[in-house]
Amino acid sequence: MPKTTHHPMPFSLSLSRAWARSDSLLCVGLDPDPGKMPAHLAHAPDAIYQFCTAIADATADLVCAFKPQIAYFAAQRAEDQLEALIEHIHTAHPHVPVILDVKRGDIGSTAEQYAREAFERYKADAVTVNPYMGFDSIEPWLAHADRGVFLLCRTSNPGGADLQMLDVGGEKLYERVARLAAGPWNGGGELGLVVGATVPDELARVRALAPGLPLLVPGIGAQGGDVQATVAAGRAANGLGMVINSSRAILYAGRGEDFAQAARQAASEARDTINRFRNA
Amino acid sequence: MPKTTHHPMPFSLSLSRAWARSDSLLCVGLDPDPGKMPAHLAHAPDAIYQFCTAIADATADLVCAFKPQIAYFAAQRAEDQLEALIEHIHTAHPHVPVILDVKRGDIGSTAEQYAREAFERYKADAVTVNPYMGFDSIEPWLAHADRGVFLLCRTSNPGGADLQMLDVGGEKLYERVARLAAGPWNGGGELGLVVGATVPDELARVRALAPGLPLLVPGIGAQGGDVQATVAAGRAANGLGMVINSSRAILYAGRGEDFAQAARQAASEARDTINRFRNA
Repeated sequence: MPKTTHHPMPFSLSLSRAWARSDSLLCVGLDPDPGKMPAHLAHAPDAIYQFCTAIADATADLVCAFKPQIAYFAAQRAEDQLEALIEHIHTAHPHVPVILDVKRGDIGSTAEQYAREAFERYKADAVTVNPYMGFDSIEPWLAHADRGVFLLCRTSNPGGADLQMLDVGGEKLYERVARLAAGPWNGGGELGLVVGATVPDELARVRALAPGLPLLVPGIGAQGGDVQATVAAGRAANGLGMVINSSRAILYAGRGEDFAQAARQAASEARDTINRFRNA
Repeated sequence: MPKTTHHPMPFSLSLSRAWARSDSLLCVGLDPDPGKMPAHLAHAPDAIYQFCTAIADATADLVCAFKPQIAYFAAQRAEDQLEALIEHIHTAHPHVPVILDVKRGDIGSTAEQYAREAFERYKADAVTVNPYMGFDSIEPWLAHADRGVFLLCRTSNPGGADLQMLDVGGEKLYERVARLAAGPWNGGGELGLVVGATVPDELARVRALAPGLPLLVPGIGAQGGDVQATVAAGRAANGLGMVINSSRAILYAGRGEDFAQAARQAASEARDTINRFRNA
Protein backbone atom coordinates (compact mmCIF):
# COMPACT_ATOMS: atom_id res chain seq x y z
CA MET A 1 0.00 0.00 0.00
CA PRO A 2 1.38 3.47 -0.81
CA LYS A 3 2.28 5.68 2.11
CA THR A 4 -0.39 8.32 2.42
CA THR A 5 0.63 11.93 2.64
CA HIS A 6 -2.49 12.65 4.63
CA HIS A 7 -2.65 15.18 7.49
CA PRO A 8 -1.38 18.46 6.20
CA MET A 9 -3.54 20.26 8.78
CA PRO A 10 -4.88 20.04 12.34
CA PHE A 11 -8.00 17.95 12.82
CA SER A 12 -10.04 20.96 13.96
CA LEU A 13 -9.32 22.70 10.68
CA SER A 14 -10.04 19.68 8.50
CA LEU A 15 -13.33 19.18 10.38
CA SER A 16 -14.28 22.83 9.86
CA ARG A 17 -13.59 22.52 6.17
CA ALA A 18 -15.55 19.27 5.99
CA TRP A 19 -18.57 20.93 7.62
CA ALA A 20 -18.43 23.75 5.08
CA ARG A 21 -17.75 21.57 2.06
CA SER A 22 -20.46 18.99 2.79
CA ASP A 23 -22.97 21.39 4.33
CA SER A 24 -23.55 18.53 6.74
CA LEU A 25 -23.17 17.68 10.41
CA LEU A 26 -23.84 14.02 9.70
CA CYS A 27 -21.27 11.34 10.44
CA VAL A 28 -21.82 7.79 9.23
CA GLY A 29 -20.73 5.23 11.79
CA LEU A 30 -19.12 2.18 10.19
CA ASP A 31 -20.11 -0.71 12.49
CA PRO A 32 -20.08 -3.73 10.17
CA ASP A 33 -22.11 -6.55 11.68
CA PRO A 34 -21.88 -9.65 9.46
CA GLY A 35 -25.31 -10.81 10.66
CA LYS A 36 -26.92 -7.68 9.24
CA MET A 37 -24.92 -7.20 6.06
CA PRO A 38 -26.42 -7.92 2.60
CA ALA A 39 -26.60 -11.62 1.83
CA HIS A 40 -24.78 -11.33 -1.49
CA LEU A 41 -21.65 -10.13 0.32
CA ALA A 42 -21.73 -12.75 3.05
CA HIS A 43 -19.20 -15.14 1.56
CA ALA A 44 -16.61 -12.70 0.24
CA PRO A 45 -13.36 -12.99 2.22
CA ASP A 46 -13.22 -9.19 2.42
CA ALA A 47 -16.96 -8.71 2.94
CA ILE A 48 -16.45 -6.14 5.68
CA TYR A 49 -14.18 -4.03 3.51
CA GLN A 50 -16.52 -4.30 0.53
CA PHE A 51 -19.54 -3.38 2.61
CA CYS A 52 -17.93 -0.40 4.34
CA THR A 53 -16.27 1.04 1.24
CA ALA A 54 -19.55 0.78 -0.68
CA ILE A 55 -21.30 2.69 2.13
CA ALA A 56 -18.49 5.26 2.27
CA ASP A 57 -18.46 5.80 -1.49
CA ALA A 58 -22.25 6.20 -1.57
CA THR A 59 -22.36 8.76 1.26
CA ALA A 60 -19.05 10.65 1.20
CA ASP A 61 -20.49 13.89 -0.19
CA LEU A 62 -23.25 13.89 2.44
CA VAL A 63 -21.13 13.65 5.59
CA CYS A 64 -18.60 15.64 7.60
CA ALA A 65 -16.86 12.50 8.89
CA PHE A 66 -16.81 8.72 8.98
CA LYS A 67 -16.55 6.86 12.28
CA PRO A 68 -15.45 3.21 12.12
CA GLN A 69 -16.01 1.40 15.43
CA ILE A 70 -12.95 -0.81 15.92
CA ALA A 71 -14.73 -3.50 17.99
CA TYR A 72 -16.70 -4.67 14.95
CA PHE A 73 -13.48 -5.26 13.05
CA ALA A 74 -11.53 -6.80 15.93
CA ALA A 75 -14.30 -9.28 16.77
CA GLN A 76 -14.07 -10.54 13.17
CA ARG A 77 -10.26 -10.66 13.02
CA ALA A 78 -10.54 -7.97 10.34
CA GLU A 79 -7.80 -5.50 11.30
CA ASP A 80 -6.42 -5.65 7.75
CA GLN A 81 -9.81 -4.69 6.35
CA LEU A 82 -10.00 -1.72 8.74
CA GLU A 83 -6.57 -0.56 7.57
CA ALA A 84 -7.62 -0.89 3.94
CA LEU A 85 -10.94 0.87 4.57
CA ILE A 86 -9.33 3.94 6.13
CA GLU A 87 -6.69 4.00 3.40
CA HIS A 88 -9.51 3.91 0.85
CA ILE A 89 -11.36 6.79 2.51
CA HIS A 90 -8.20 8.91 2.66
CA THR A 91 -7.50 8.23 -1.01
CA ALA A 92 -10.98 8.40 -2.52
CA HIS A 93 -12.47 11.00 -0.16
CA PRO A 94 -9.52 12.97 1.18
CA HIS A 95 -11.68 15.77 2.50
CA VAL A 96 -13.67 13.53 4.86
CA PRO A 97 -11.94 13.01 8.22
CA VAL A 98 -11.97 9.58 9.86
CA ILE A 99 -12.76 9.34 13.57
CA LEU A 100 -11.69 5.93 14.84
CA ASP A 101 -13.99 4.98 17.70
CA VAL A 102 -11.74 3.11 20.15
CA LYS A 103 -12.65 4.57 23.59
CA ARG A 104 -9.25 3.60 24.94
CA GLY A 105 -7.93 4.77 28.29
CA ASP A 106 -4.69 3.60 29.93
CA ILE A 107 -1.51 4.73 31.68
CA GLY A 108 0.99 6.79 29.71
CA SER A 109 3.29 4.06 28.38
CA THR A 110 0.34 1.97 27.23
CA ALA A 111 -1.58 4.95 25.89
CA GLU A 112 1.44 5.64 23.69
CA GLN A 113 1.00 2.19 22.16
CA TYR A 114 -2.71 2.74 21.61
CA ALA A 115 -2.02 6.13 20.01
CA ARG A 116 0.48 4.47 17.71
CA GLU A 117 -2.14 1.88 16.79
CA ALA A 118 -4.81 4.47 15.98
CA PHE A 119 -2.76 7.22 14.39
CA GLU A 120 0.21 5.45 12.78
CA ARG A 121 -1.14 2.02 11.96
CA TYR A 122 -4.72 2.98 11.07
CA LYS A 123 -3.98 6.62 10.17
CA ALA A 124 -7.09 7.91 11.90
CA ASP A 125 -7.60 11.67 11.97
CA ALA A 126 -9.22 11.55 15.40
CA VAL A 127 -10.19 9.07 18.11
CA THR A 128 -12.48 8.65 21.09
CA VAL A 129 -10.82 8.30 24.52
CA ASN A 130 -12.15 7.44 27.99
CA PRO A 131 -11.28 10.04 30.68
CA TYR A 132 -11.60 7.82 33.79
CA MET A 133 -7.82 7.50 34.26
CA GLY A 134 -7.21 11.25 34.14
CA PHE A 135 -5.03 13.70 32.27
CA ASP A 136 -1.78 11.75 32.00
CA SER A 137 -3.72 8.98 30.24
CA ILE A 138 -4.83 11.54 27.63
CA GLU A 139 -1.52 13.33 27.09
CA PRO A 140 0.06 10.66 24.84
CA TRP A 141 -2.84 11.10 22.44
CA LEU A 142 -2.46 14.88 22.47
CA ALA A 143 1.23 14.48 21.70
CA HIS A 144 0.05 13.73 18.15
CA ALA A 145 -0.63 17.42 17.83
CA ASP A 146 -2.48 17.39 14.51
CA ARG A 147 -4.98 14.70 15.54
CA GLY A 148 -8.31 15.09 17.31
CA VAL A 149 -9.32 13.47 20.61
CA PHE A 150 -12.98 13.21 21.62
CA LEU A 151 -13.28 12.48 25.35
CA LEU A 152 -16.26 10.53 26.60
CA CYS A 153 -18.36 12.98 28.60
CA ARG A 154 -22.07 12.07 28.85
CA THR A 155 -22.79 8.89 26.95
CA SER A 156 -26.01 7.85 25.24
CA ASN A 157 -26.57 4.49 26.94
CA PRO A 158 -28.91 3.92 29.91
CA GLY A 159 -26.01 3.25 32.30
CA GLY A 160 -24.34 6.47 31.23
CA ALA A 161 -25.95 8.06 34.28
CA ASP A 162 -24.48 5.59 36.79
CA LEU A 163 -21.23 7.51 37.27
CA GLN A 164 -21.44 10.46 34.89
CA MET A 165 -24.43 12.02 36.69
CA LEU A 166 -22.95 11.80 40.18
CA ASP A 167 -22.62 15.15 41.92
CA VAL A 168 -18.92 15.87 42.44
CA GLY A 169 -19.33 19.07 44.46
CA GLY A 170 -21.70 21.52 42.82
CA GLU A 171 -21.53 19.91 39.41
CA LYS A 172 -21.97 16.50 37.82
CA LEU A 173 -19.04 14.31 36.86
CA TYR A 174 -19.75 14.82 33.14
CA GLU A 175 -19.76 18.58 33.70
CA ARG A 176 -16.35 18.33 35.35
CA VAL A 177 -15.06 16.42 32.33
CA ALA A 178 -16.51 19.08 30.01
CA ARG A 179 -14.88 21.89 32.01
CA LEU A 180 -11.51 20.14 32.08
CA ALA A 181 -11.69 19.46 28.34
CA ALA A 182 -12.64 23.04 27.56
CA GLY A 183 -9.92 24.44 29.82
CA PRO A 184 -6.79 22.99 31.44
CA TRP A 185 -6.69 19.75 29.45
CA ASN A 186 -6.98 21.42 26.04
CA GLY A 187 -3.60 23.06 25.57
CA GLY A 188 -3.31 22.01 21.95
CA GLY A 189 -6.86 22.93 21.03
CA GLU A 190 -7.70 19.55 19.52
CA LEU A 191 -10.01 18.13 22.19
CA GLY A 192 -13.68 17.42 21.63
CA LEU A 193 -16.37 15.67 23.67
CA VAL A 194 -18.73 12.74 23.19
CA VAL A 195 -22.28 13.49 24.34
CA GLY A 196 -25.28 11.33 23.50
CA ALA A 197 -28.28 12.53 21.52
CA THR A 198 -30.48 10.69 24.01
CA VAL A 199 -29.77 13.29 26.71
CA PRO A 200 -30.49 16.74 25.19
CA ASP A 201 -30.52 18.57 28.53
CA GLU A 202 -26.98 17.45 29.26
CA LEU A 203 -25.98 18.15 25.67
CA ALA A 204 -27.09 21.76 26.11
CA ARG A 205 -25.19 21.96 29.37
CA VAL A 206 -22.00 20.66 27.74
CA ARG A 207 -22.37 23.18 24.92
CA ALA A 208 -22.64 25.95 27.53
CA LEU A 209 -19.53 24.73 29.35
CA ALA A 210 -17.53 24.12 26.18
CA PRO A 211 -18.78 26.63 23.62
CA GLY A 212 -15.91 26.11 21.20
CA LEU A 213 -15.43 22.35 21.29
CA PRO A 214 -16.63 19.94 18.61
CA LEU A 215 -19.17 17.50 20.02
CA LEU A 216 -19.42 13.97 18.71
CA VAL A 217 -23.07 13.02 19.20
CA PRO A 218 -24.10 9.39 18.77
CA GLY A 219 -27.58 8.17 19.47
CA ILE A 220 -29.85 9.45 16.71
CA GLY A 221 -31.52 6.73 14.66
CA ALA A 222 -31.45 3.29 16.23
CA GLN A 223 -30.70 4.63 19.69
CA GLY A 224 -33.77 6.89 19.56
CA GLY A 225 -32.37 10.39 19.96
CA ASP A 226 -34.56 13.21 18.67
CA VAL A 227 -32.91 15.23 15.90
CA GLN A 228 -34.59 18.55 16.57
CA ALA A 229 -33.79 18.49 20.29
CA THR A 230 -30.25 17.34 19.57
CA VAL A 231 -29.48 20.11 17.11
CA ALA A 232 -31.07 22.81 19.27
CA ALA A 233 -29.09 21.66 22.30
CA GLY A 234 -25.72 21.02 20.75
CA ARG A 235 -25.07 23.46 17.94
CA ALA A 236 -22.38 26.04 18.38
CA ALA A 237 -22.98 29.76 17.91
CA ASN A 238 -22.18 29.45 14.20
CA GLY A 239 -24.70 26.61 13.73
CA LEU A 240 -21.91 24.05 13.43
CA GLY A 241 -19.81 22.38 16.14
CA MET A 242 -21.46 18.95 16.01
CA VAL A 243 -20.60 15.62 14.47
CA ILE A 244 -23.91 13.77 14.63
CA ASN A 245 -23.39 10.07 14.21
CA SER A 246 -25.81 7.55 12.79
CA SER A 247 -24.74 3.96 12.26
CA ARG A 248 -27.37 1.24 12.02
CA ALA A 249 -30.16 3.39 10.54
CA ILE A 250 -27.93 4.15 7.55
CA LEU A 251 -25.82 0.99 7.22
CA TYR A 252 -28.79 -1.33 7.26
CA ALA A 253 -31.38 0.87 5.50
CA GLY A 254 -31.45 -1.79 2.77
CA ARG A 255 -30.25 -5.35 2.72
CA GLY A 256 -30.48 -6.14 -0.97
CA GLU A 257 -27.99 -5.53 -3.75
CA ASP A 258 -28.95 -1.85 -3.66
CA PHE A 259 -27.92 -1.46 -0.01
CA ALA A 260 -25.50 1.37 -0.79
CA GLN A 261 -28.18 3.34 -2.60
CA ALA A 262 -30.54 2.78 0.34
CA ALA A 263 -27.81 3.98 2.68
CA ARG A 264 -27.32 7.08 0.55
CA GLN A 265 -31.03 7.81 0.67
CA ALA A 266 -31.11 7.40 4.47
CA ALA A 267 -28.00 9.57 4.88
CA SER A 268 -29.42 12.25 2.61
CA GLU A 269 -32.63 12.37 4.61
CA ALA A 270 -30.71 12.49 7.89
CA ARG A 271 -28.53 15.33 6.65
CA ASP A 272 -31.54 17.30 5.41
CA THR A 273 -33.44 16.79 8.65
CA ILE A 274 -30.44 18.00 10.63
CA ASN A 275 -29.99 21.00 8.37
CA ARG A 276 -33.64 21.98 8.65
CA PHE A 277 -33.28 22.27 12.42
CA ARG A 278 -29.76 23.67 12.30
CA ASN A 279 -30.94 26.80 10.57
CA ALA A 280 -34.27 27.06 12.39
CA MET B 1 -4.46 -24.50 15.60
CA PRO B 2 -6.38 -27.05 17.67
CA LYS B 3 -9.57 -25.83 19.36
CA THR B 4 -8.91 -25.53 23.05
CA THR B 5 -11.26 -27.14 25.49
CA HIS B 6 -10.31 -24.53 28.05
CA HIS B 7 -12.70 -23.12 30.67
CA PRO B 8 -14.22 -25.98 32.55
CA MET B 9 -14.71 -23.73 35.58
CA PRO B 10 -15.51 -20.15 36.62
CA PHE B 11 -12.61 -17.71 36.62
CA SER B 12 -12.87 -17.14 40.38
CA LEU B 13 -12.32 -20.84 40.98
CA SER B 14 -9.44 -21.19 38.54
CA LEU B 15 -7.80 -18.15 40.14
CA SER B 16 -8.21 -19.64 43.64
CA ARG B 17 -6.64 -22.85 42.47
CA ALA B 18 -3.81 -20.96 40.79
CA TRP B 19 -3.08 -19.08 44.01
CA ALA B 20 -2.90 -22.34 45.93
CA ARG B 21 -0.96 -24.28 43.33
CA SER B 22 1.70 -21.61 42.73
CA ASP B 23 1.83 -20.27 46.29
CA SER B 24 2.08 -16.92 44.55
CA LEU B 25 0.16 -13.68 44.16
CA LEU B 26 2.46 -12.57 41.36
CA CYS B 27 1.17 -11.91 37.86
CA VAL B 28 3.61 -11.31 35.03
CA GLY B 29 2.43 -8.60 32.68
CA LEU B 30 3.25 -9.36 29.05
CA ASP B 31 3.89 -5.92 27.51
CA PRO B 32 6.27 -6.68 24.65
CA ASP B 33 8.10 -3.52 23.58
CA PRO B 34 10.32 -4.23 20.56
CA GLY B 35 12.69 -1.45 21.59
CA LYS B 36 13.45 -3.23 24.86
CA MET B 37 13.47 -6.85 23.74
CA PRO B 38 16.71 -8.85 23.46
CA ALA B 39 18.71 -7.96 20.37
CA HIS B 40 19.02 -11.54 19.16
CA LEU B 41 15.23 -11.72 18.73
CA ALA B 42 14.85 -8.40 17.00
CA HIS B 43 14.66 -9.68 13.44
CA ALA B 44 12.49 -12.75 13.89
CA PRO B 45 9.11 -12.27 12.19
CA ASP B 46 7.42 -13.64 15.32
CA ALA B 47 9.76 -11.95 17.80
CA ILE B 48 6.89 -10.88 20.05
CA TYR B 49 5.53 -14.41 20.28
CA GLN B 50 8.99 -15.88 20.88
CA PHE B 51 9.78 -13.32 23.56
CA CYS B 52 6.50 -13.69 25.43
CA THR B 53 6.35 -17.48 25.30
CA ALA B 54 9.93 -17.68 26.57
CA ILE B 55 9.00 -15.43 29.49
CA ALA B 56 5.83 -17.42 30.15
CA ASP B 57 7.61 -20.77 30.04
CA ALA B 58 10.33 -19.51 32.40
CA THR B 59 7.92 -18.11 35.00
CA ALA B 60 4.72 -20.20 34.79
CA ASP B 61 5.30 -22.06 38.07
CA LEU B 62 5.95 -18.79 39.91
CA VAL B 63 2.77 -16.91 39.02
CA CYS B 64 -0.97 -17.01 39.62
CA ALA B 65 -1.75 -15.37 36.26
CA PHE B 66 -0.37 -13.83 33.09
CA LYS B 67 -1.60 -10.47 31.87
CA PRO B 68 -0.93 -9.59 28.23
CA GLN B 69 -1.57 -5.90 27.50
CA ILE B 70 -3.26 -5.81 24.09
CA ALA B 71 -1.99 -2.35 23.09
CA TYR B 72 1.56 -3.64 22.74
CA PHE B 73 0.40 -6.25 20.25
CA ALA B 74 -2.01 -4.00 18.36
CA ALA B 75 0.59 -1.26 17.88
CA GLN B 76 2.83 -3.84 16.19
CA ARG B 77 0.10 -5.40 14.03
CA ALA B 78 0.69 -8.59 16.04
CA GLU B 79 -2.83 -9.83 16.78
CA ASP B 80 -1.92 -13.26 15.38
CA GLN B 81 1.00 -13.48 17.81
CA LEU B 82 -1.29 -12.60 20.71
CA GLU B 83 -3.71 -15.35 19.69
CA ALA B 84 -0.84 -17.83 19.45
CA LEU B 85 0.63 -16.71 22.78
CA ILE B 86 -2.60 -17.25 24.70
CA GLU B 87 -3.14 -20.57 22.96
CA HIS B 88 0.36 -21.56 24.02
CA ILE B 89 -0.24 -20.60 27.64
CA HIS B 90 -3.52 -22.54 27.75
CA THR B 91 -1.82 -25.60 26.28
CA ALA B 92 1.53 -25.56 28.07
CA HIS B 93 0.38 -24.03 31.37
CA PRO B 94 -3.32 -24.85 31.63
CA HIS B 95 -3.48 -24.00 35.32
CA VAL B 96 -2.39 -20.38 34.84
CA PRO B 97 -5.28 -18.05 33.96
CA VAL B 98 -4.80 -15.33 31.35
CA ILE B 99 -6.10 -11.84 32.09
CA LEU B 100 -6.25 -9.86 28.86
CA ASP B 101 -5.70 -6.21 29.71
CA VAL B 102 -7.96 -4.32 27.31
CA LYS B 103 -9.66 -1.66 29.51
CA ARG B 104 -12.57 -1.48 27.08
CA GLY B 105 -15.80 0.35 27.82
CA ASP B 106 -18.65 0.91 25.38
CA ILE B 107 -22.42 0.68 24.86
CA GLY B 108 -24.04 -2.73 24.95
CA SER B 109 -24.01 -3.67 21.26
CA THR B 110 -20.36 -2.65 20.92
CA ALA B 111 -19.37 -4.19 24.25
CA GLU B 112 -20.73 -7.48 22.88
CA GLN B 113 -18.24 -7.23 20.02
CA TYR B 114 -15.38 -6.46 22.40
CA ALA B 115 -16.35 -9.40 24.61
CA ARG B 116 -16.35 -11.63 21.55
CA GLU B 117 -12.88 -10.36 20.68
CA ALA B 118 -11.46 -11.01 24.14
CA PHE B 119 -13.22 -14.21 25.12
CA GLU B 120 -13.91 -16.01 21.82
CA ARG B 121 -11.12 -14.83 19.56
CA TYR B 122 -8.33 -14.55 22.14
CA LYS B 123 -9.81 -17.03 24.65
CA ALA B 124 -8.91 -14.89 27.64
CA ASP B 125 -10.02 -16.11 31.06
CA ALA B 126 -10.60 -12.56 32.31
CA VAL B 127 -10.36 -8.95 31.15
CA THR B 128 -10.05 -5.42 32.46
CA VAL B 129 -12.99 -3.08 31.78
CA ASN B 130 -13.52 0.67 32.27
CA PRO B 131 -16.62 1.55 34.36
CA TYR B 132 -17.18 5.15 33.13
CA MET B 133 -20.14 4.19 30.92
CA GLY B 134 -22.00 2.37 33.69
CA PHE B 135 -23.58 -0.99 34.29
CA ASP B 136 -25.11 -1.71 30.90
CA SER B 137 -21.64 -1.33 29.36
CA ILE B 138 -20.41 -4.08 31.72
CA GLU B 139 -23.31 -6.52 31.36
CA PRO B 140 -22.26 -7.96 27.96
CA TRP B 141 -18.97 -9.01 29.55
CA LEU B 142 -20.73 -10.62 32.49
CA ALA B 143 -22.94 -12.54 30.07
CA HIS B 144 -19.87 -14.74 29.55
CA ALA B 145 -20.62 -16.20 32.95
CA ASP B 146 -17.44 -18.23 33.45
CA ARG B 147 -15.08 -15.34 32.70
CA GLY B 148 -13.67 -12.73 35.05
CA VAL B 149 -14.05 -8.96 34.73
CA PHE B 150 -11.74 -6.58 36.60
CA LEU B 151 -13.22 -3.07 36.68
CA LEU B 152 -10.89 -0.10 36.84
CA CYS B 153 -11.35 1.42 40.28
CA ARG B 154 -8.34 3.43 41.54
CA THR B 155 -5.55 3.40 39.01
CA SER B 156 -1.82 3.62 39.62
CA ASN B 157 -1.00 6.57 37.36
CA PRO B 158 -0.60 10.20 38.58
CA GLY B 159 -3.79 11.32 36.80
CA GLY B 160 -5.73 8.51 38.46
CA ALA B 161 -6.77 11.04 41.08
CA ASP B 162 -8.25 13.53 38.58
CA LEU B 163 -11.69 11.92 38.51
CA GLN B 164 -11.42 8.84 40.76
CA MET B 165 -10.73 10.89 43.91
CA LEU B 166 -13.63 13.31 43.42
CA ASP B 167 -16.12 13.32 46.29
CA VAL B 168 -19.46 12.03 45.01
CA GLY B 169 -21.46 12.62 48.17
CA GLY B 170 -19.75 11.22 51.24
CA GLU B 171 -17.43 8.94 49.31
CA LYS B 172 -14.92 9.14 46.48
CA LEU B 173 -15.76 8.07 42.95
CA TYR B 174 -13.44 5.03 43.21
CA GLU B 175 -15.20 4.01 46.44
CA ARG B 176 -18.54 4.17 44.64
CA VAL B 177 -17.15 1.90 41.92
CA ALA B 178 -15.87 -0.51 44.58
CA ARG B 179 -19.24 -0.59 46.34
CA LEU B 180 -21.12 -1.16 43.10
CA ALA B 181 -18.73 -3.93 42.08
CA ALA B 182 -19.00 -5.62 45.47
CA GLY B 183 -22.78 -5.35 45.49
CA PRO B 184 -25.43 -4.65 42.85
CA TRP B 185 -23.19 -5.07 39.81
CA ASN B 186 -21.79 -8.46 40.86
CA GLY B 187 -24.71 -10.79 40.35
CA GLY B 188 -22.60 -13.52 38.82
CA GLY B 189 -19.78 -13.27 41.34
CA GLU B 190 -17.04 -12.88 38.75
CA LEU B 191 -16.18 -9.20 39.20
CA GLY B 192 -12.85 -7.96 40.48
CA LEU B 193 -11.26 -4.52 40.76
CA VAL B 194 -8.09 -2.84 39.51
CA VAL B 195 -6.33 -0.80 42.20
CA GLY B 196 -2.79 0.52 41.87
CA ALA B 197 0.04 -0.43 44.19
CA THR B 198 1.09 3.22 44.19
CA VAL B 199 -1.89 4.18 46.37
CA PRO B 200 -1.87 1.84 49.40
CA ASP B 201 -4.36 3.90 51.42
CA GLU B 202 -6.97 3.58 48.72
CA LEU B 203 -6.09 -0.08 48.24
CA ALA B 204 -6.89 -0.70 51.92
CA ARG B 205 -10.14 1.21 51.53
CA VAL B 206 -11.14 -0.89 48.51
CA ARG B 207 -10.33 -4.09 50.41
CA ALA B 208 -12.60 -2.89 53.23
CA LEU B 209 -15.43 -2.11 50.81
CA ALA B 210 -15.01 -5.30 48.78
CA PRO B 211 -13.67 -7.93 51.17
CA GLY B 212 -14.35 -10.85 48.85
CA LEU B 213 -13.28 -9.48 45.48
CA PRO B 214 -10.01 -10.30 43.72
CA LEU B 215 -7.91 -7.18 43.25
CA LEU B 216 -5.64 -6.79 40.25
CA VAL B 217 -2.81 -4.59 41.47
CA PRO B 218 -0.39 -3.09 38.96
CA GLY B 219 2.32 -0.67 39.89
CA ILE B 220 4.99 -2.60 41.76
CA GLY B 221 8.40 -2.57 40.10
CA ALA B 222 8.87 0.06 37.41
CA GLN B 223 5.93 2.14 38.65
CA GLY B 224 7.41 2.33 42.14
CA GLY B 225 4.80 0.74 44.37
CA ASP B 226 6.04 -0.59 47.71
CA VAL B 227 5.47 -4.34 48.10
CA GLN B 228 5.09 -4.43 51.88
CA ALA B 229 2.53 -1.63 51.93
CA THR B 230 0.70 -3.16 48.96
CA VAL B 231 0.36 -6.59 50.51
CA ALA B 232 -0.64 -5.23 53.91
CA ALA B 233 -3.30 -3.04 52.35
CA GLY B 234 -4.76 -5.38 49.79
CA ARG B 235 -4.67 -8.93 51.07
CA ALA B 236 -7.94 -10.65 51.84
CA ALA B 237 -8.68 -12.26 55.21
CA ASN B 238 -7.18 -15.53 53.97
CA GLY B 239 -3.94 -13.84 52.89
CA LEU B 240 -4.88 -14.16 49.22
CA GLY B 241 -7.25 -12.06 47.11
CA MET B 242 -4.62 -10.19 45.11
CA VAL B 243 -3.14 -10.51 41.65
CA ILE B 244 -0.03 -8.34 41.90
CA ASN B 245 1.24 -7.43 38.48
CA SER B 246 4.79 -6.69 37.47
CA SER B 247 5.68 -6.14 33.82
CA ARG B 248 8.83 -4.25 32.93
CA ALA B 249 10.88 -5.22 36.00
CA ILE B 250 10.52 -8.88 35.01
CA LEU B 251 10.34 -8.74 31.20
CA TYR B 252 13.44 -6.62 30.88
CA ALA B 253 15.47 -7.93 33.83
CA GLY B 254 18.00 -9.14 31.27
CA ARG B 255 18.53 -8.23 27.65
CA GLY B 256 20.99 -10.91 26.59
CA GLU B 257 20.38 -14.45 25.37
CA ASP B 258 19.62 -15.43 28.99
CA PHE B 259 16.74 -12.96 29.25
CA ALA B 260 14.25 -15.69 30.21
CA GLN B 261 16.46 -16.90 33.04
CA ALA B 262 16.88 -13.32 34.24
CA ALA B 263 13.11 -12.92 34.13
CA ARG B 264 12.67 -16.11 36.14
CA GLN B 265 15.11 -14.82 38.74
CA ALA B 266 13.29 -11.48 38.98
CA ALA B 267 9.90 -13.22 39.20
CA SER B 268 11.15 -15.59 41.86
CA GLU B 269 12.42 -12.71 43.96
CA ALA B 270 9.18 -10.79 43.51
CA ARG B 271 7.11 -13.80 44.54
CA ASP B 272 9.27 -14.41 47.61
CA THR B 273 9.15 -10.77 48.65
CA ILE B 274 5.37 -10.76 48.33
CA ASN B 275 5.08 -14.00 50.29
CA ARG B 276 7.30 -12.71 53.09
CA PHE B 277 4.89 -9.83 53.68
CA ARG B 278 1.78 -11.87 52.95
CA ASN B 279 2.37 -14.08 55.94
CA ALA B 280 3.79 -11.36 58.18
